[in-house]
Amino acid sequence: MANAVLKVEGMTCGHCVSAVEKAVGSAGASGKVDLASKKVTVQYDETKVTLEAVKAAIEDQGYDVV
Amino acid sequence: MANAVLKVEGMTCGHCVSAVEKAVGSAGASGKVDLASKKVTVQYDETKVTLEAVKAAIEDQGYDVV
Repeated sequence: MANAVLKVEGMTCGHCVSAVEKAVGSAGASGKVDLASKKVTVQYDETKVTLEAVKAAIEDQGYDVV
Repeated sequence: MANAVLKVEGMTCGHCVSAVEKAVGSAGASGKVDLASKKVTVQYDETKVTLEAVKAAIEDQGYDVV
């Protein structure tokens, strides 16, 4: 398993937290958002999931991974 | 039909807009949110729905009707 911390802009509320965590999940990874720091901790199996796919899933929801 | 404009605090994003409009709908009324002005225009049949019930539905979602 690999871990990564992404900085994500545009999350403002609990709904955004849910949307981003769900997006990470849909990419086959597991994500935990800290809204205050705008950080998303992603845990993923690097043999099955790429971090690029996780980032793309988050961006598909309208947020910017910076 | 009656119209009312409510000022609602705590809405920050499109998810919040959806949550509030859905809450208004669940109370049997129809709502349109303007996020920038924090205003919710509510249309309702005053023989069937009270504005108090609409406000309560919005507050149940975690927003403040001021």
